[in-house]
Formats: sequence, structure tokens, C-alpha cells
Amino acid sequence: MTIYVINPNSSQHVTDGITQAVNPMRAISHVHIEARTLAEGPPGIETQAHVDGVVGPLLAHCAALEAEASAFVVACYSDPGLAALREQSARPVLGIAEASILTAMMMGQRFGILSILSRSIPRHMRYIGAMGVMDRLAADLPLELGVLDLQDKARTFERLTSVGTRLRDTAMADVVILGCAGMTAFRTDLEEHLGIPVVEPCQAAVAMAIGRVALQKTLKDRT
Amino acid sequence: MTIYVINPNSSQHVTDGITQAVNPMRAISHVHIEARTLAEGPPGIETQAHVDGVVGPLLAHCAALEAEASAFVVACYSDPGLAALREQSARPVLGIAEASILTAMMMGQRFGILSILSRSIPRHMRYIGAMGVMDRLAADLPLELGVLDLQDKARTFERLTSVGTRLRDTAMADVVILGCAGMTAFRTDLEEHLGIPVVEPCQAAVAMAIGRVALQKTLKDRT
Amino acid sequence: MTIYVINPNSSQHVTDGITQAVNPMRAISHVHIEARTLAEGPPGIETQAHVDGVVGPLLAHCAALEAEASAFVVACYSDPGLAALREQSARPVLGIAEASILTAMMMGQRFGILSILSRSIPRHMRYIGAMGVMDRLAADLPLELGVLDLQDKARTFERLTSVGTRLRDTAMADVVILGCAGMTAFRTDLEEHLGIPVVEPCQAAVAMAIGRVALQKTLKDRT
Amino acid sequence: MTIYVINPNSSQHVTDGITQAVNPMRAISHVHIEARTLAEGPPGIETQAHVDGVVGPLLAHCAALEAEASAFVVACYSDPGLAALREQSARPVLGIAEASILTAMMMGQRFGILSILSRSIPRHMRYIGAMGVMDRLAADLPLELGVLDLQDKARTFERLTSVGTRLRDTAMADVVILGCAGMTAFRTDLEEHLGIPVVEPCQAAVAMAIGRVALQKTLKDRT
Amino acid sequence: MTIYVINPNSSQHVTDGITQAVNPMRAISHVHIEARTLAEGPPGIETQAHVDGVVGPLLAHCAALEAEASAFVVACYSDPGLAALREQSARPVLGIAEASILTAMMMGQRFGILSILSRSIPRHMRYIGAMGVMDRLAADLPLELGVLDLQDKARTFERLTSVGTRLRDTAMADVVILGCAGMTAFRTDLEEHLGIPVVEPCQAAVAMAIGRVALQKTLKDRT
Amino acid sequence: MTIYVINPNSSQHVTDGITQAVNPMRAISHVHIEARTLAEGPPGIETQAHVDGVVGPLLAHCAALEAEASAFVVACYSDPGLAALREQSARPVLGIAEASILTAMMMGQRFGILSILSRSIPRHMRYIGAMGVMDRLAADLPLELGVLDLQDKARTFERLTSVGTRLRDTAMADVVILGCAGMTAFRTDLEEHLGIPVVEPCQAAVAMAIGRVALQKTLKDRT
Repeated sequence: MTIYVINPNSSQHVTDGITQAVNPMRAISHVHIEARTLAEGPPGIETQAHVDGVVGPLLAHCAALEAEASAFVVACYSDPGLAALREQSARPVLGIAEASILTAMMMGQRFGILSILSRSIPRHMRYIGAMGVMDRLAADLPLELGVLDLQDKARTFERLTSVGTRLRDTAMADVVILGCAGMTAFRTDLEEHLGIPVVEPCQAAVAMAIGRVALQKTLKDRT
Repeated sequence: MTIYVINPNSSQHVTDGITQAVNPMRAISHVHIEARTLAEGPPGIETQAHVDGVVGPLLAHCAALEAEASAFVVACYSDPGLAALREQSARPVLGIAEASILTAMMMGQRFGILSILSRSIPRHMRYIGAMGVMDRLAADLPLELGVLDLQDKARTFERLTSVGTRLRDTAMADVVILGCAGMTAFRTDLEEHLGIPVVEPCQAAVAMAIGRVALQKTLKDRT
Repeated sequence: MTIYVINPNSSQHVTDGITQAVNPMRAISHVHIEARTLAEGPPGIETQAHVDGVVGPLLAHCAALEAEASAFVVACYSDPGLAALREQSARPVLGIAEASILTAMMMGQRFGILSILSRSIPRHMRYIGAMGVMDRLAADLPLELGVLDLQDKARTFERLTSVGTRLRDTAMADVVILGCAGMTAFRTDLEEHLGIPVVEPCQAAVAMAIGRVALQKTLKDRT
Repeated sequence: MTIYVINPNSSQHVTDGITQAVNPMRAISHVHIEARTLAEGPPGIETQAHVDGVVGPLLAHCAALEAEASAFVVACYSDPGLAALREQSARPVLGIAEASILTAMMMGQRFGILSILSRSIPRHMRYIGAMGVMDRLAADLPLELGVLDLQDKARTFERLTSVGTRLRDTAMADVVILGCAGMTAFRTDLEEHLGIPVVEPCQAAVAMAIGRVALQKTLKDRT
Repeated sequence: MTIYVINPNSSQHVTDGITQAVNPMRAISHVHIEARTLAEGPPGIETQAHVDGVVGPLLAHCAALEAEASAFVVACYSDPGLAALREQSARPVLGIAEASILTAMMMGQRFGILSILSRSIPRHMRYIGAMGVMDRLAADLPLELGVLDLQDKARTFERLTSVGTRLRDTAMADVVILGCAGMTAFRTDLEEHLGIPVVEPCQAAVAMAIGRVALQKTLKDRT
Repeated sequence: MTIYVINPNSSQHVTDGITQAVNPMRAISHVHIEARTLAEGPPGIETQAHVDGVVGPLLAHCAALEAEASAFVVACYSDPGLAALREQSARPVLGIAEASILTAMMMGQRFGILSILSRSIPRHMRYIGAMGVMDRLAADLPLELGVLDLQDKARTFERLTSVGTRLRDTAMADVVILGCAGMTAFRTDLEEHLGIPVVEPCQAAVAMAIGRVALQKTLKDRT
């Protein structure tokens, strides 16, 4: 049985980053973890049309994996199709935005989000409102870098540290979330730089997925 | 390394119930899970003085276990000492109230809580307010049974089903949480009876603790 | 120029109901109002998969109408594709759920919603949370009737009055919203029965759309 | 029948500005729109005593117009007498603060308000709290200009752009509201300058009033 | 110096009830307490027009008393003119609704309100929203008795106990507020009947006023 | 009978500051006011372990005083043991954090808090969340001075004015609270400097305690 982590954009390097980010977790559990690229997705999910457009292919992709799946993780910070996949699948279904926020809520009292683009932020605000956790948000601030720009590591890290510092010192965040699946490589360095916990959402979601698979085991305790 | 689940009341049968409830989870992970009784605690934690009174012994108990601990779970629905233990320990620290609520937030949109006594409810309300998730609460309703009364299984189950039904049909909860560590035995039957997910908080917290231990593994990924 | 009201389900009788419901509004304005059926939609939108599934066809349908459109109204109580359509179109875009809630907020202090099915309610809760107006919600209660069941008028009205009475007297709603585009025919009778305002969401959204078209006129006041 | 827009301060130039601002809307509808000055009002409404003091004359003024009125718009950003006028009149009654906020909620996810004086802000905060939409507020910042100072156009525009920029870039507003009926002339230029929607509240309220008059037409659809 | 308690309705028997209710407090402090009737007020304040209509006379009445006043208490559960009187006066100004709610927040976690009429409730909801304490409200339920009906003691007490029981057992209030200045006589009996604290708002406000007068003393500690 | 103000840290100079701060209040009332040092407390309460650690000794200390007590005030800005002391004692029990916030809510619409250390802030956020008044908070900002550092008056005042200015001008607070019992000496000067009300929490709590003692008098009005 396998935890499937679905990257709904078609950029293989993002999927590779996820694989590398969750690799060390394999040590803790027998459950397989496999990151997959949704071929039908756009190179990066940057608009609401992108978000809505990947739901159909994502549902089909996961339906085909249902039999061997222990759990599904949707690996895009807009959690596309999360509610629909929960309807469709009998497995635990996690979204990286939701899981990262719930994880950050155990690590600090006010979380900040580092978003790629300012046009992502209204979408995040709607989502945090839907989750009912707006009072825990310090701020959501944009790097103003697209998904593909994130491959320029020096520039990305410079933006992460300057915007992360603003989250910590001006917005009074005591934990920070990387608001995109494509920033896995920066977590450790940024945490060291800022001196407060930094949550990488794919890691957070896979960690919770391992827990949820463990929790599923308890469902059979009467049989 | 071990996930220590500390039952801060001194009732061994509660600890035994926890052990049994989390047993099936051992299949998923190499991490040991051990439930322990805090000898200094009262038989049941039913007042604010009980909650505050166990913090000192709990901190001392956990300090002695720190070296072999992977994570700590505080197994009382008032999450006594959670913030202090997070200050003290370098390990992930989880509380069963917090973890059960965050878990329920992934399983439904409005959670109900089955509390033992009406005098627990104001304490829960303060906690849910502190967590900033009041908008997700359907209602918190009392069984009016003390911790020790829970050993009368027939009466307890009768109360769980009648109050659970009120949570589902009147308060419109779509997921229900057992609001005490001493009700592990009833989860499966109650879920079957109500037809909506029922979260047992010790299981939910241990599941998340396994995930958090996995997440800790990623902290070393640069070395 | 035309206000296009798109019924994203494929049931022509729902579209016909909308046409009839907004007919009297034509007296107030020169703008044409035209209700259209989305042929690609399911007979009724009752699941999250239905909601997400109509977004693509809806966007295409509206793109083809953009040149002659004054405004678009999405006529399903889950407001499918609203954010995406707002990205795509240069015209005012209204959703019947959002518009009906904003309208109810001017008619009463606590609004109740009459939903078709209990499984619609978590979706509504996420939406009301995303709108940030949860404090104004009295309750959202289900009729437990599917979209097609609504054609049985006697049974539907019986359910509307009994659940509406519960909204008014138990949940203390002082305004009630019909939570589906297929209940246009019942508004007047239900309002008379309950003695508090009843908002039909297609009418509310078209009314706001007429206003928004008027507001667009002011954009040119410098040229 | 006429939509009466009542400027509750006695400054005719403010009324003239409103007339000019809503003029282009006449193209969309047969309903007359007439802006009127409340002779009994103070030159500008800048204190709570001003707000409370105009309610009596406003109610009397509107009572005399009831027979020919299609709707009433109270054109002061404190919405004086709104609840009382709704009690008194059988017509739709709109306030420019409420209507502008509800309109902004369809144009962006977080609205900012440009207030004239910092002493207006606590009053606005109470109102936004009463509306239950505090989570949608980015910030409310003062120009520190009185109603009469607004006639100095160069200075006013300079303040609007600098404070508006702070709303957009520091408070992360994605839509901005002009928080006074006396700033109609600046909307278009400010929107162009800031690059995000700017809502002029008299226009927003009259637009909604046209819609509400259309909605009233549906009330008679059974007779 | 005197704490003036202004009953803004013209019913002397309401003022007499207030005098009697606050009488025992005179034992604790040298400050005089004097309840006064606003002759210009209506017999009972039951509509928004009543609320707004008494502000002018109330401000004038208090202006004349300013020199001998230690503090002002506005003794109507809609707190008419509170913000305006705070602008006008250099003394502490308290409203019985605000003070009773803040007091209840120290006595329980969720307060219920016993309102006279259902049409008062939307006004209370706006006020509680403006205070930002909606999450602490259990429910606000009507007796459906006008101010003058309260003189029928048997009937009033019967309604208070039945609606109070609903607040305690269904809405889960753990403290209850009498939502009108004319119910002073029932506090003790109702508290005994319900077994949870019952706050009489005139008493609560005068108690806080004594405190505020004490606090004023500290303002001079440097001179 | 006496209002006992318990300073739960062991620094006598803090207790002396409290005594001096509440001295002028004695003029208003016959009730004695006595500030006491909890010998078992740490020199300053700066961590969650400090907060939880003083609850036991505090409860014992107050139990011994119960017979002569009119009311208890817990004089530490984390309100340690407040809920437990309310369970234990039949007297009114006030915490300086809660009382200062409730007082500030009558003096302004958005309160700012001047905290000693940034690590106090998450604790305050949990508390404000538990109180359900997050919407009234402007911001909570740290001086980054420990309890003992506060004895350096020049440096402390410099920090208070610079951080207080940021609360007023950036966070838009219209009332400011001193977030520690050890800053009594600065209230008047800081208020003069900032030009908005500054609440000293020990004074605020003792003022409310005097009121609550007065309110207790009304409990006997039937006998």
C-alpha cells in the first residue's frame, strides 16, 4: 500500500523536489510514499482557472490508484479538488495547504504564509476563511515569483528571507509556512535564518498522512 | 525511541484503555508507543484545579523521559501543561484535545464534542477560543458522567448515543469527538450508530505524533 | 447588451423557473436578461464533483458570450467557477449564493438557509467561512430533497414551511434564503407563511447584476 | 417613482458631487434618482453627536417623501438612522457604508477604507463589527482631512494616493473604499493610480438601490 | 459628586426599580448614586426610533449634570447615545448593556440574554457584533413582553424561568443577563431558580461605575 | 473585609509598585485593599512553566485568606490560576489581564498591549482568543525587557514610548494596556506622551474589584 502524493502541475522538477523532501520520512514507516506528476496539469498552478482545471484529471488519476492507495496527498498550495477527492475516495485525503496550516497551529500561535504571487493571496484568504482559522493568521505576503522563477535559487532565497523577516517582525508570526510545493529545498536554510519554525507543506502533509494511515488501522480493531 | 503517552490521571484502567486503543497503530511504524500513568494525578481530571495541579508532576515525569522520547502525548482532554511541556522539551508535544480537533477538521466541517460533565464545557470553550477555531464547533454537550462513571459501559453508551444524536441532528455536527481519554472503547460502536466519523482523541494524537516523528526526520536532511 | 444568467445544470425546467422568476425585473431596466442552460451540466448539482465538473464548460460558455454580455450570473447555489469567471471576464460576475447572502444581510440581522440536502451544508459552511460572514448565519438546515424532487410542489412546500419555521423559531433567523436555484416558485408563498423576508437567490443576483451594470456606467464618466 | 439619495449634511456641494457621480446610472433604468440635502444637518458629519443628531430630521424628511419613493439611500459614511429608517419605511433603504462594503466584498477579498479623520475610525470599527465582516477588513486608515478640507482637490488627492498605497501594500487590501460621501470626484483617478478597484460609496449604494427596486417588482408576481 | 443613572424612558416606576436595585451598593462607597428619569423619553424604548430619538434629550440632560457628575450610567439595554455621551463628557460613561456583558464575561464563558421582544434582538446582535464578543454569546431569546407588560410580575416571572431554562439547557449558557432595565425585581429569584448567575444590568453598570470613579482617582497621582 | 491583590512573583518591589498604584483608590471606598507577595513565586513570571507553577501556591495562599476576603485580584498579566481560583473561592476573583482588557474595551475600540517579551505574546494570544475578543485587539508588541529590567526606568520609558507609538500609529490602537504588573509607575507619563488612554492593569482590576464587592451587596437584597 502506498501514500500517493499527487503534484497537480506538470513540472517534473517540482515532483522531484517533493520526493527528495519526503525521503527521510521513509525511515519511520513501512508505508510506501510515491510522488507523481499530473501530466494534464499546467507547468505551474497560478490562477483560479488552473486550480479548477486540474480537478477533473486529478480525480481520474486518483480513481485509478484507489485500490493500491493508503492515502492521497494533493500537493499544490491551493488544495485543488480536495473536497471532491474526499467524496470519491475511501482513503484519507490530505491537502498540503490544510495540513501545513494545521501543523503550524501546533508549532506556533500565529502563522505567516510566504506566497509566490500576490494574486494567490485572495484565494488563500478564502481558504483560510473556509477553514475557520483566520484569527491564527499573522499575514500572507507575496514573494512575487512565479512557480518557474523558483528555480533561481539565489533570488528565491533572498526573497524568502526578506519577506519572512517581515512576517516575523512586522506581522508578528511565530511560525512560517512555505506557500507553494516548489520551495521544498529552502526549508532548512530559511528556518536557520529566521530562527522560528518553517513548515514545508508537502512534508507536513505526508507526515499527517502517515499518521492517518496509522489511524485507519484502528478502524478494524473490533474484527 | 518511544512516543510516550502520558495519562495524567492515576487511573490505570484509563491507561490500559489507551494502550489497547493505540495498539493497532504499532503495525505502521517502528517507533515504540508506550502509555504511562501519572501516579501523582487524581483518579479523574474533572476540575480546573485538577488540570493545573498535574502540570508540575507531568513536567517532571516527562523531563525524566526526554532522552528516550521521540514525542510526548498528553492524554487528558484538557491538555494540561501542553504549552509548558512544549517550552521544556525538544521533542514534538501533542495534546489529545488539540490533536483530535485538528483531526476532526479534516474529517468534517463542524465538529461536536461529547464532554463528560457540563462543568468541563467552559474550560473547553476557552480552549477552542484559544485555538481560534470556534467557527468550526457545532456544539459541546455533556454526558453528565464523571470519569469513573464511564466504567458502566451500558449506561455510558446509552448517553453517548443520545447526546451524539443531538449533536448530529440538532447542532448539525458532521463529525464527533469523544471529549475524554476514558472513552476509547466506545468509538467504533458509536461511529456505526451515528453514521458520521467519531474521533477518539488518544488515537488521533498518537497518529499525529507518528507523523510528527516522521517530520522530525526531515530536519536532518542537509547533514 | 445582456445579463446572462447561466444555469449550470442541464435541467431546462430549472432555467424556465429562473426566467419566470426574473421576468418582472425587466420592467425596471433596458438591459436584457437571458437565462441559459449549460448543456454539459448534470441534471442537478448535488456533489462537490458536480460543482468542480461544471467549471470548465461554464468558462467556455461564458467566454463565447463575453462580447455581448453586460454581466454574468452563475445560477447554482454552490457558485461554481465564480472566482475563475471573475478572472476570465471583464464584466461584473455574480453568484447566486454570494448575492443572496449579501442581500439578506440588508434585510435582516441573521440569515437562515434552506438547503436541499444535508450533504450540501458542509460546502455552504466552507463558502460562508470564505465570505467571512459566519457570525451572520443563524443556521443552514436541509430539506432532504434532491434537485429533481423539487418538482413535487406540495411535498416541497411542506418541507419548506416546516424547516423554515425551525430556522425562524429555533435558530432565530430573521431572514431566510432559498438555497437552490430550483425553488423560485415558492418564494412568495413561503414569505407569506413565515412572516419574515424570503430571498430567492436568482432574483437577488439578477437585481444586483442590474445595479452592477449601472455602476459600470460610472466607469466612463471622465471620457 | 424616485430613488431618493439623502445627504444628511447641509453642504450643497456634497449633494452636487453625488448628483454628478450617479448621473451616468440614469442611462440604465427608468427610475428617477434625486439627491437631496438635509437642511437641518451640520456642514459635515464628523462626530457621533452629528450622526445621532441627524436621525430625527432624516426620518421626518423621508416620511414626507415615502409616497413617491422607490427607495431611500442615506448618503453619509456613518449610515445615520439606517435601522430606524428601515423600521419606518416600506421601501428598500440603503446606507452608503453598508452598500459600499457589500459591493467591495464582490470585487476583492480584503477591503481597505480611506477615512477622513482618525476619530471616525472607532465608529467604523463598531459598524463593521455590527455587520459581522471584520475578517474581510484589511485596514481603515485616516486622511486626517475634515469634510470641508476635501474641497482642496490637490491636497486631498495627494493624501488619497499615499494612504491608499499604504492600504494596498502594507495592509494588503485588494479593493479600496472611499469612506466619505464627499470624495466622489476622486474615484476614477485614484483607481487608475492604485491599480485596484476603488469603490465610491454613493455610486455603490445607488447601484444596489436600482437592483432593489427591480427586486421589489418580483414581489407582485403572484397578483 | 454623584453617579447619575439616567433612565431614558419616562416611566418613573422603572427608575424606582433601578433605585431600589442599586440601593445596597451605597454601603460600599461614599459616592452618591442617583437614578433619574428622562422626561422626554417614551414610556418604554422598544424600537430603533425610540433609541435614536432619546439621544438628543439625553445629551442635554447629562450636559446640565456634568459639573456634579462622577460618572454617567445610561440605563436602557440598547445603550442609546453611549458613544455620543462619551464624546461629550469628561466623566466615565457606562451603558448597562455593555457593562452587563463585560460583567457576565467574568462570571461565565457563554452568556445568554433575556430580551423583552424579538424585535429587540437584531439590535442586540448588531451591538454584540460591534463589541466584538459574538463568540461568547450563547443565545438571545425573547420573552415577548413589552416594557409595560413587565409590571405583571407573575406572568413575567413565568416567562423568565421558561426562557431562561431554554438558554441554560438548549443554548448552553452558563450566565444569563436580564436584557431590560425594567426587570430589576426578578434577579434574585431567577438566579435561585436557574442555579447559574443572573446579571441585572443596572446593578452591573453601577458597580463598574463605582470602580471607574475609583480608577479616576489614580489619574491625579502625580499632582 | 479586604480586597487581596496577590502578586504571584516574589519581587517585593513589584508588590510595592502595586500598592502605590492603587493607593488613591482607597479614597472612594471603605473596603481595604492589600497587596501581597507570593513568596513561593519566581522573581518574575516570564515562561509558561512559571505561570503554571504558581497556581498551587496561589490557591493555598488565597484559601487561607478566604474568610477575610471581599475579593481576590491575581496580579500577573498571565492571570495564572484564575479559573481554578474561581472554582475554589466564593468571592469575586479578578485577573489583571482580563480586567484590563474589559476596561480598555470601554475606553477605546481597538486596544494595544505592551508586553515585556516576545515570548509572552503567544500566551497572550491564546488568552485573548479564549476571551473571544480577538477582533478588538490592535496588536500586542514586545518591549523585549524582562521583569527585572523594568527597574531601569529611563530605558523602560524609552521602550514604552517607541513601542506605544507603533501601537497607536501603525496598528491603529486607540487605547493601550501595560502588559505586566511591574510597570505601574509609567502609566501617567506614557498616557501624556501618547495622547490616548493607557490602562494600568492592577489599577483596572482593583477598580473592577471594588465594583464587584459593591455588586455582592445586592445579593442580599431579599433578606
